[in-house]
Amino acid sequence: MTTAARNTLSVADKFRPLFYPESVALVGASSNPAKIGYLSLQNILQWRFPGRIYPVNPEGGEILGLRVFPSIASIPGEKVDLALIARPGKELPSILEECRRKGARGAVIVTGGLKEMGTAEGQELEERMACAAGGDMKIIGPNTIGMINRSASLNVSFQDTLAMLKPGNISLVTQSGGTCMYMVHQLMNYGAGVSKAMSLGNRCNIDFPDLLEYLAEDDDTRVVILHVEGLDHAARFIEAGQKLSCRKPVLSYKVGNFTSLTKAVCSHTGALAGKPEFQAAALKQAGFIPLTSTSDLVDAARALSYQPPARGNRFAVLSPQAGPAIIISDTCQRLGLCPAEFTPATREKLHSLVDPTTYKDNPIDMAVTATRFDESVQTLATVAADDNVDIIICATLFHGTYIHLLRALIHLAGQITKPVVVCTDTPLGVPNPEAVELEQLKIPTYPLPERAALAAWALAKAIPRFED
Amino acid sequence: MTTAARNTLSVADKFRPLFYPESVALVGASSNPAKIGYLSLQNILQWRFPGRIYPVNPEGGEILGLRVFPSIASIPGEKVDLALIARPGKELPSILEECRRKGARGAVIVTGGLKEMGTAEGQELEERMACAAGGDMKIIGPNTIGMINRSASLNVSFQDTLAMLKPGNISLVTQSGGTCMYMVHQLMNYGAGVSKAMSLGNRCNIDFPDLLEYLAEDDDTRVVILHVEGLDHAARFIEAGQKLSCRKPVLSYKVGNFTSLTKAVCSHTGALAGKPEFQAAALKQAGFIPLTSTSDLVDAARALSYQPPARGNRFAVLSPQAGPAIIISDTCQRLGLCPAEFTPATREKLHSLVDPTTYKDNPIDMAVTATRFDESVQTLATVAADDNVDIIICATLFHGTYIHLLRALIHLAGQITKPVVVCTDTPLGVPNPEAVELEQLKIPTYPLPERAALAAWALAKAIPRFED
Repeated sequence: MTTAARNTLSVADKFRPLFYPESVALVGASSNPAKIGYLSLQNILQWRFPGRIYPVNPEGGEILGLRVFPSIASIPGEKVDLALIARPGKELPSILEECRRKGARGAVIVTGGLKEMGTAEGQELEERMACAAGGDMKIIGPNTIGMINRSASLNVSFQDTLAMLKPGNISLVTQSGGTCMYMVHQLMNYGAGVSKAMSLGNRCNIDFPDLLEYLAEDDDTRVVILHVEGLDHAARFIEAGQKLSCRKPVLSYKVGNFTSLTKAVCSHTGALAGKPEFQAAALKQAGFIPLTSTSDLVDAARALSYQPPARGNRFAVLSPQAGPAIIISDTCQRLGLCPAEFTPATREKLHSLVDPTTYKDNPIDMAVTATRFDESVQTLATVAADDNVDIIICATLFHGTYIHLLRALIHLAGQITKPVVVCTDTPLGVPNPEAVELEQLKIPTYPLPERAALAAWALAKAIPRFED
Repeated sequence: MTTAARNTLSVADKFRPLFYPESVALVGASSNPAKIGYLSLQNILQWRFPGRIYPVNPEGGEILGLRVFPSIASIPGEKVDLALIARPGKELPSILEECRRKGARGAVIVTGGLKEMGTAEGQELEERMACAAGGDMKIIGPNTIGMINRSASLNVSFQDTLAMLKPGNISLVTQSGGTCMYMVHQLMNYGAGVSKAMSLGNRCNIDFPDLLEYLAEDDDTRVVILHVEGLDHAARFIEAGQKLSCRKPVLSYKVGNFTSLTKAVCSHTGALAGKPEFQAAALKQAGFIPLTSTSDLVDAARALSYQPPARGNRFAVLSPQAGPAIIISDTCQRLGLCPAEFTPATREKLHSLVDPTTYKDNPIDMAVTATRFDESVQTLATVAADDNVDIIICATLFHGTYIHLLRALIHLAGQITKPVVVCTDTPLGVPNPEAVELEQLKIPTYPLPERAALAAWALAKAIPRFED
């Protein structure tokens, strides 16, 4: 490609061969089912990747029904978009050189034992790799679990547990492959959909800021989960982060905050752990939503994936059980949200609808009112119409009697324009079909009250606030 | 009973008719499947309660195959131990009077609309109820979801979702029935066993201090979960709490900390919310382990239910994935635990066992070592034998390749005397039989790293520390 042609490409164009390839070469394909070179090929086939797939191994033959090519050069056709590489470190520069000649503009390198070893040899090898790749090839890794783009039915990783993962709009960029996949598993288990997920590993030629820039332009991504152990380029990171968080909520998690972990972080993916307070400040300046656990990241991402952001921070809680409603209100306030003050008109309607022996204010203890469908619909509609309410949290412990609050929500789902989250659970052996239907309607459910509160908070934080 | 005879009874004896009755009367039994008086009878039958069951309803007849008695007095035999009462408030004093005459020494009253209404009428009714019950009858409620004692196959509540709940050693005392059952559902879903679970409601004649005293003596209870909205008797609470927490770990959670919730708390079960800081101080003085979410209560309870307490606060982390291991170490340190400094002998052994390209220190990044059973066993045994290690945390993202760390733990389970917790997950559609086996061996597993860290922390906090 000429320099002129390259300059006209958008960021999305530059990353397209990596994330949306028309063809993938697997360099280091293996017929041994215990090897990464076999698992990875299985993964590429699993979601029925629609592009061309070229296993590469000097021995040739056939693996999993696919013809194996002895070299990258021997692959038919003019070019290959993406190479997944599972070969020893010393071979990588020449493999990348071959890939570049074949027109590859994306590579995923799972090989470890390079820069993260802290040796001059590892460092030098990665520098040679970056040179061999040239300016146009985007590399994820080395020392990565790989990358998935569920939006393109592409799994170029050695994680072989993702058959049931649905396509969706949550993208994850992590330093650690294990951490990435723990979260992808949780999202999958909750039925939430993922677009892209990757661990950046040693960041041979693309780093966090590059991905932040790309995800801002990526139409398939609506919410970003970011897991950071160490940052090498704080200024670029903040700049790219601000551009991204103007457009999409970014849930961030900085780990490795204790001195005892500096060595572990450095030897993990070669990142400088740096002073935790500086890095936390960088995440804040970038306008990200700071969280402190993978559990919170997953819970918040599901809410932001499904629901519109809240226009303000005033919440209303409806529940037939007072105790969980108090917990939700307590947690929301601890996180910085405010209980909505209902308008006089709302109060008047609620007084006529909700059992006066339990109704006091916000939270609304619905008690027996939740055992009746019509009153539940009217109560919920009244709260949803109140201009003082920005976010609605419905909670009901699973119990057949009180299910009408959830049925009312299902009934009104298309009409409520404000964000809604639900706390309800599914006891072992007792199906909760309303919870399933709510998830299908893109209303997230959480099995414990504090988790619903955290999700509501994330919806209120989705408008970026930059801090100096 | 004479005063002399009553004085010789232990606390456990006094509560026996309530928690371990030989016979139960259901006052307000109903043949209408939508009514509490029917659901409750179904519940009493569900776990095959081995005692005698007497439904009471003036209409007589038969419900669910059981003969219905027209009155409490008409029940055959000399006495009934426990009465579950689901009748309107104004009838309660005379029903309790009848129960007392029939020798009942336990009652569970689910009726609401009494003291929590804040009316003189409700207050007066509860005072008359306490008088009618006399000095020997222990009352849970009114305004409660009820009580279960899985150790006695007894479900005297209207929560009909607990068929799959296993007997175990965790007991829950809560202010809110909904909150209680959210947590019981989670414990059930994780396969953890429960002994007693109850919401105290309006605390007509037994309150938190009484239950704390009782649970200290209850042989079926090893761990206590306590959910408090408001305390009425701080001095008695602290005294009874200290006696209990000397013997058993108590996980406590104080909610309702914001002024906006004072009204909600008061109208919920008639408790004075009081100044949150005073109440938090009371829980601390009682030697309880303070937590801030139902999720943490459940996670910590599972660890304390299964594992021995830690002798100190020095933890070791083993994982084939560095990222999750860093998160665990980070979280443990944030909670106040210390990374163990391995002895020179341990370090030497680890250097020979673990891949030198990944092994640095603690956390131990096992990488490929976890793909081999023998080395995994030796690595784990080496760490477990180190005198500087008090708690062991094993983590592995589910992946067939790295399962040998979990297999090693299963192999060594009987020999390791120190507490162990595990982080591993079960992706949808991919069974993780090792995780199931670990739970059977009473080694708790958590699907995300921070949750395993919290469990480890709880094991280190299980030795009570009283604070002035």
